Amino acid sequence: MALADLKQIDRNAIGIDTVVGILRQRFGDRFQTGQSIREQHAHTTTYIPSQLPDGVFFAESSEDVSEAVRICADHRVPLIPFGVGSSLEGHVNAPAGGISIDMSRMNKIVEVNSEDLDCTVEPGVTRDQLNQYLRDTGLFFPIDPGANASLGGMASTRASGTNAVRYGTMRENVLALKAVMADGREITTARRARKSSAGYDLTRLLIGSEGTLGIITSLTLRLQGIPQAISGGVCPFPSVEAACNAVIMTIQMGIPVARIELVNALQMKAMISYSDLDYEESPCLFLEFHGSDESVKEQAGLFGDIAEEFGGGPFRWTSVTEERQKLWKARHDAYWAALTLRPGAKGISTDVCVPISRLAECIMQTETDIAEMGLIAPIVGHVGDGNFHVLILLDTDDGGEIEQAEKFVDGLNRRALEMGGTCTGEHGIGQGKMRYLEMELGIGVDYMQAIKQALDPLNIMNPGKVITIT
Amino acid sequence: MALADLKQIDRNAIGIDTVVGILRQRFGDRFQTGQSIREQHAHTTTYIPSQLPDGVFFAESSEDVSEAVRICADHRVPLIPFGVGSSLEGHVNAPAGGISIDMSRMNKIVEVNSEDLDCTVEPGVTRDQLNQYLRDTGLFFPIDPGANASLGGMASTRASGTNAVRYGTMRENVLALKAVMADGREITTARRARKSSAGYDLTRLLIGSEGTLGIITSLTLRLQGIPQAISGGVCPFPSVEAACNAVIMTIQMGIPVARIELVNALQMKAMISYSDLDYEESPCLFLEFHGSDESVKEQAGLFGDIAEEFGGGPFRWTSVTEERQKLWKARHDAYWAALTLRPGAKGISTDVCVPISRLAECIMQTETDIAEMGLIAPIVGHVGDGNFHVLILLDTDDGGEIEQAEKFVDGLNRRALEMGGTCTGEHGIGQGKMRYLEMELGIGVDYMQAIKQALDPLNIMNPGKVITIT
Repeated sequence: MALADLKQIDRNAIGIDTVVGILRQRFGDRFQTGQSIREQHAHTTTYIPSQLPDGVFFAESSEDVSEAVRICADHRVPLIPFGVGSSLEGHVNAPAGGISIDMSRMNKIVEVNSEDLDCTVEPGVTRDQLNQYLRDTGLFFPIDPGANASLGGMASTRASGTNAVRYGTMRENVLALKAVMADGREITTARRARKSSAGYDLTRLLIGSEGTLGIITSLTLRLQGIPQAISGGVCPFPSVEAACNAVIMTIQMGIPVARIELVNALQMKAMISYSDLDYEESPCLFLEFHGSDESVKEQAGLFGDIAEEFGGGPFRWTSVTEERQKLWKARHDAYWAALTLRPGAKGISTDVCVPISRLAECIMQTETDIAEMGLIAPIVGHVGDGNFHVLILLDTDDGGEIEQAEKFVDGLNRRALEMGGTCTGEHGIGQGKMRYLEMELGIGVDYMQAIKQALDPLNIMNPGKVITIT
Repeated sequence: MALADLKQIDRNAIGIDTVVGILRQRFGDRFQTGQSIREQHAHTTTYIPSQLPDGVFFAESSEDVSEAVRICADHRVPLIPFGVGSSLEGHVNAPAGGISIDMSRMNKIVEVNSEDLDCTVEPGVTRDQLNQYLRDTGLFFPIDPGANASLGGMASTRASGTNAVRYGTMRENVLALKAVMADGREITTARRARKSSAGYDLTRLLIGSEGTLGIITSLTLRLQGIPQAISGGVCPFPSVEAACNAVIMTIQMGIPVARIELVNALQMKAMISYSDLDYEESPCLFLEFHGSDESVKEQAGLFGDIAEEFGGGPFRWTSVTEERQKLWKARHDAYWAALTLRPGAKGISTDVCVPISRLAECIMQTETDIAEMGLIAPIVGHVGDGNFHVLILLDTDDGGEIEQAEKFVDGLNRRALEMGGTCTGEHGIGQGKMRYLEMELGIGVDYMQAIKQALDPLNIMNPGKVITIT
């Protein structure tokens, strides 16, 4: 079957029962339809209601994926790829039913090429698994979203995290992909060269396409050498504005910070108590520097001077691994710490990203909104990139609270767009932000639709996400 | 007119005469059909024969571009975007006739946002023009292909150059584009945020699409702070292999070299005489380090140790601006120096890029081929990325020589593909490498064709380049 053949398939013949029967017969236990497993595969960690798939298929090879896609295409049944289920915008929901294709068993690290600083992995490998595997090689993979996500999922949502300011996002750190397309054929998007001008950038087209154009079956990733020295620390500031101005100057001076993270006063309060930190309840920057012994000292010194200029400090930093790790554990536990601010509440994360010159203004207006609306909503941010998350703590059984949260999110997204920013820096569009994508890119979305229709004419690849197909 | 409307246009109504008439009436002197101007716009700096457009339109605004595209779409006439004409694979040829759309008058620098380290420019701005404009801001744009190319052209071919090892290619340094699509509408591919997960990556899809999907009308580019200190130097090696091994170790140790360029013995011979350099005729690495005073010293020291380990050296380096500039002027004049090796000959450049672990082997086998075939063909390379160029000096009036050069290029491209590399690191596919693209990506090309057909159903956007549409 090739792409053209898909157009021959009867568009009225939706055959979920047939597909369930075929998959059960063909794959036995590897295909499951129990309620709890289907619920687990539609778990969205958001306020978006779960929409269960009709069954879950545990793929073990790209041939499995190809076969499942062919079966589903024959009967016009949707496929929803599933990594670890840590996505935040309803990406794994099945609004039109269909088959959840669980990639977690495709978790082999296929090869590591130390000399080339790259590796090839299956999509179910998680970032922790990869970094543990790499531990003895002197290499690491820098992209670190909050969750221990699968690398296939991270590519699909164009994820990033705290290291992006230095090392880039999934966009910059994937050299090549394999993916099974809507006709069941597996393509290779690029070779292993570090750069290429060979044709359309199918790699980047698939990164961030959230499973709507193809199912990633292999990733070739750039790796980084573990730096000779790492230092890190925390610097308090009198205001969010002062902290943001220090960030701008740090970036502008070209100090190659590896991480520069904002934690606002309310979030610091939660972290101080949750992670037993010896800091004040004021806006803080968490920083990390990578380099030689000399260079990390130099970077920390330069940053300290900048902080002082904006009324911040003292900047306490350390090269001692344990102390540094305690700080970053606290930062990575920010979500759990925040939840303690309102026990029993659920946390809903926003994800705007603005040009850093507008960042202070954007965060301050957002803090004003939070206060005026009486929300409990701490803020953390990958501020070197202009990206920050508000974690709205709410009772998701209370319709009024959800409505208010949606109003708040709407205002925040519109503000970011007005400032030349985006509604999503790293979480993706999924179901939750489709209307903001249209506000953000206008008629650009028409061309995304044209691409989607060309590559997935039956609209079976994770339908109902990113863009609407009519 | 929208994308869907294009499908209503009579596919048999090719009306070049009508289009010529309309453009002349509408734009007067800004549309020209003289022989010499048409020849100049099909000048390809390759051995690919020139194929002249029917006329040349000098666009002055994105509205001009939209209007020209609409007129051409109505009559199914091809449009071929033209920057400065420095592309190397027949990109500006008009194999099916049509209108060359010269973007050089769209050369305004629209805005520079110093705090955000970005700027927005029209596509006809050249890289030298931009860097001269930026001179007083403390910022620079790092991508430097050999020619003083237009930034629109550089994006279209996914260009890079000597700084890519540190700063990336056009792929990593464009934040957003505007482009006029095949229906004449202008889209914005992204906002000005430094990262985004909002929908399909139309920015990266257009970068490297060589004018076949849309015509770039605006670019928002990332800028870099001019480093506090820059040092650079040249290090001779006993062999290409030793030089490549030093490169691998340098990259692996994470030394953040800004430039690391290989010049083989024959090319050094040419440069020593052309640029009056005081070096030996042996393989050399040209290096540059960016950072603080301390860090450039440290980097140079570390590299010197590595070079020694592989039998290279002495590594002579300097922080004196004039001396450094002389070296890099010599490196940038490599093409002109090479031409002196065979006066009267034309130079044809290859562009393979391989994983750096295979680089030494690839270059050595290539040097053996050159010797066995009796070619005069020096080599320079952006070896930190695994990319190198063989400049074949030949008499393009001699069919035998062209045939032999093609045989050599064929062998080299196949070798790079066998090694997991690409046929083009930075020049693009154009007309010259279409069959290698198919060898490189196999059925992946089918999906490129589907995208092309979806976004340009009349096949009027630079047809006959990158992929074949049947």
